[in-house]
Amino acid sequence: MQAKSIPDIVIGRLPIYLRALQHMLREGRQVTSSQELGERLGISAAQIRKDLSQFGEFGKQGTGYTIKFLADRLQEILHVDRVWRVAMIGAGDLGRALAHYGGFAERGFQIEMIYDSDPEKIGTKVGNFVVRDSANLLAEIKAESIQVAMLVVPAAFAQPVAEQLVEAGVKAILNYAPVNLSVPADVHVQHIDPSTHLQRMTYYLE
Amino acid sequence: MQAKSIPDIVIGRLPIYLRALQHMLREGRQVTSSQELGERLGISAAQIRKDLSQFGEFGKQGTGYTIKFLADRLQEILHVDRVWRVAMIGAGDLGRALAHYGGFAERGFQIEMIYDSDPEKIGTKVGNFVVRDSANLLAEIKAESIQVAMLVVPAAFAQPVAEQLVEAGVKAILNYAPVNLSVPADVHVQHIDPSTHLQRMTYYLE
Repeated sequence: MQAKSIPDIVIGRLPIYLRALQHMLREGRQVTSSQELGERLGISAAQIRKDLSQFGEFGKQGTGYTIKFLADRLQEILHVDRVWRVAMIGAGDLGRALAHYGGFAERGFQIEMIYDSDPEKIGTKVGNFVVRDSANLLAEIKAESIQVAMLVVPAAFAQPVAEQLVEAGVKAILNYAPVNLSVPADVHVQHIDPSTHLQRMTYYLE
Repeated sequence: MQAKSIPDIVIGRLPIYLRALQHMLREGRQVTSSQELGERLGISAAQIRKDLSQFGEFGKQGTGYTIKFLADRLQEILHVDRVWRVAMIGAGDLGRALAHYGGFAERGFQIEMIYDSDPEKIGTKVGNFVVRDSANLLAEIKAESIQVAMLVVPAAFAQPVAEQLVEAGVKAILNYAPVNLSVPADVHVQHIDPSTHLQRMTYYLE
């Protein structure tokens, strides 16, 4: 089914459910319930049942969810039953740390190339990658039909680089630069900005 | 006023508004409108007006918002008109990259100490910090009355370290480990997990 009308906030919770289910699988678990999931995640069991019911019937009253089945279905729904090739733009401290992080592949993503504009970085190795010249990113990303990018450049470069990514055909940008991006409506952007997350919490502190 | 009943999703947008306003200030701008802010952020002008109206009157019909005034008020509301001292736990690649990131201070946060449990890391320098032994984190964070922590440890360590942070009196944890944390209701947690953000976007891709 996967109606387009499902609220994005519901979509945003599905990866959280999937992550918890995959954690349970690694613990050797086979069955769970909306109650247990809810307790682990701090989300009400009713909310979890309501969210999942938008995509079909996944559990039986009284017997709960088969973890593997539900995780597989969530991977399909989120389109991470495949591996997405990812272009990373920016080979600074943070980009290099992310390139070394081994946890992407099992969750549906494979960094394929890393770009930087700094002549001192171009040609150097970051993990298994040789840093490419960002002057070529538009042509290369287009040629490779890459749809997903991680933008790990200084704030001043984020918008112009994002425009090149859009022109290259990228449809999903994970933006680590602490600025908003203006992109066409069919391009999805998620922001990772630690300061905004911290500020969302300090609101509640005295 | 700051009624406790304002939805967290509204609170979550305030740092985004603040970031955009501070960006405008750096551009030398003085006045903006909910329309302009909305276009920059991909949020409707009506939503922005409604969110801000929960905290008082910030603009005049027809003349818009004085950027500096609104930014100052948002800083007060989010409690970042002060600087929060932050403990970072984890001096791996990502922790070190974050420690070198210079953008926290102007947004209300100052990393004060960095911990790790690896004997090879303890005592080494990361930027201006000497990595401390995480065996001492509970006592030291408690003694320093630190309320905000960034958790940048491997997934398997996240929950036990979080429990120490809670015992030390920490009330806000920015969790970079890709696992959920179980903490008391008065402790706030925000997660930064690039894979969940990416999965939220691939849902929309073919």
